[in-house]
Amino acid sequence: ADTKAAEAARARQNSLTKPPGSLGRLEELAEFIATWRGTARPEIWRAQALVFAGNHGVCAQGVNPYPQEVTAQMVANFRAGGAAINQLCAVNGADLSVIALELDRPTADFTEGPAMSETDCLDALWQGASAVDEGADVLILGEMGIGNSTVAAALAAACFGGRVAEWVGPGTGSDKAGIARKVDAIERGLKRHEAILGDPPAILAALGGREQAAICGAVLAARSARIPVVLDGFICTAAAAVLHAADKRLLDHCLVGHASAEPGHRNLLAAIDKRPVLEFDMRLGEGSGAALALGILRAALACHNGMATFAEAGVSEA
Amino acid sequence: ADTKAAEAARARQNSLTKPPGSLGRLEELAEFIATWRGTARPEIWRAQALVFAGNHGVCAQGVNPYPQEVTAQMVANFRAGGAAINQLCAVNGADLSVIALELDRPTADFTEGPAMSETDCLDALWQGASAVDEGADVLILGEMGIGNSTVAAALAAACFGGRVAEWVGPGTGSDKAGIARKVDAIERGLKRHEAILGDPPAILAALGGREQAAICGAVLAARSARIPVVLDGFICTAAAAVLHAADKRLLDHCLVGHASAEPGHRNLLAAIDKRPVLEFDMRLGEGSGAALALGILRAALACHNGMATFAEAGVSEA
Repeated sequence: ADTKAAEAARARQNSLTKPPGSLGRLEELAEFIATWRGTARPEIWRAQALVFAGNHGVCAQGVNPYPQEVTAQMVANFRAGGAAINQLCAVNGADLSVIALELDRPTADFTEGPAMSETDCLDALWQGASAVDEGADVLILGEMGIGNSTVAAALAAACFGGRVAEWVGPGTGSDKAGIARKVDAIERGLKRHEAILGDPPAILAALGGREQAAICGAVLAARSARIPVVLDGFICTAAAAVLHAADKRLLDHCLVGHASAEPGHRNLLAAIDKRPVLEFDMRLGEGSGAALALGILRAALACHNGMATFAEAGVSEA
Repeated sequence: ADTKAAEAARARQNSLTKPPGSLGRLEELAEFIATWRGTARPEIWRAQALVFAGNHGVCAQGVNPYPQEVTAQMVANFRAGGAAINQLCAVNGADLSVIALELDRPTADFTEGPAMSETDCLDALWQGASAVDEGADVLILGEMGIGNSTVAAALAAACFGGRVAEWVGPGTGSDKAGIARKVDAIERGLKRHEAILGDPPAILAALGGREQAAICGAVLAARSARIPVVLDGFICTAAAAVLHAADKRLLDHCLVGHASAEPGHRNLLAAIDKRPVLEFDMRLGEGSGAALALGILRAALACHNGMATFAEAGVSEA
């Protein structure tokens, strides 16, 4: 983080033709981006959106009402331009890449053993990291994977503790019995992997999935390129939260685009101490909430860079 | 309101490639626009933004820390493209018009008599109505006028009652003594105009200002052209609330773009029963919160119109 750029951005905000502070969170967002881009007047020339897709062995436990082939069908829909994330990237000017991570080889069922070998986990992490364009000014992250709200809840429970039921919600639309199956699968998974619960990288391999590992890799790659990241909802945040559990500073360059309607997201936001940009009762994933928040970031920087100062406009001050 | 268009829009949302309801408030907003435009798949080809500016006699009571000439200076800033509203209209694709309403002839001080004659009030109302482009698909409303947070609080107190202090806040930056002067001026104004307190048009003339009357006129003109309206923050909402006090259905076609940091706005939103689109701690006026919300409306319609259905994409349902 560049505190000099942050101070210069703050000074600029206070010189613009408006009562100081009157753009509220738009001012904070402009300063946040300035801090990470290391310049007082950052611009978003290139917004990159990455959506990682994976399949999950834990679907064998009946944790999702949709058939697992929907993951590949939705990847095809992303590639054809028909999903929500395509429209949101188009309207807010993000370049979308969809990265399908071995959909024909789902992870193992974490109730029976580790979801991924260390090699598989590192491979997915590497795929995530190498997908990041170092020339991007902001990175939007999202995911797709039938069953992955169960994976997210398992990661959150493993990292932050608490009752499993407090991390579990309807996801894509589980009913009461479906939610009970999710809780039961996660409790058995946590019990099976009890020995590694203090070890975030091991948690990621044992209970996570390829798209979760890829998100961690992308967050780390963005950090080294000083690219601010916009995380999406519950599942994306839960993946990044594994990094937070390792060292909470690792998410300092990340915003959370929105507060999901998935109930566990509130707990997760509290655990990683992030205030979401938007609250829109969304619960779709795919990066949709993060891509929606990109429009707000563009508006924040448009004001920050485009407004006249009191001196330039000849407006009297208070 | 067109209930058939609303039903068709809802049916379309439920056919799109996402779990039903998972786009949350984006779905509600798309349906709201469909209802008022009378078509299942509305588009925003033309977004019109109108900012009305006026000056206020009540400034003689020391209710604002900025000198009154700032109104005209800010109008010049709007015309030169240097204000927040210019940047927000540019980034979200709105055509901005700024309408200065006799800035050299402020309204009268409402603590001493009616702010406007009936003729002046009707003239401003007419100017607001005639500024609306009937070819617009959505109308963004905003205002500028040094002293008008006092006018807004007076209108709100006159329409909805309650303690005056609960409607008054810092506005552009009043300190404690300034806030006390605002409360005192409004209490004296309400006392002076006690006789007309049940009569919304008379309240508008006695305690309002030209930009408030123009906002009422624009809201009514938009209604007859079936154009959905996005109101801005405290001052803009307080102006429109005079219509609500006359007949609450008159604001059915209006959204409120954001919840202002000005404390009275929460009370006002409760009084007119509206949930704001955004909550960004903004308190600038000029239509800035409404113009920010336009980006969200565009995103909502992009999803609504651009997404593939399950059938089109060949995605399995739950």
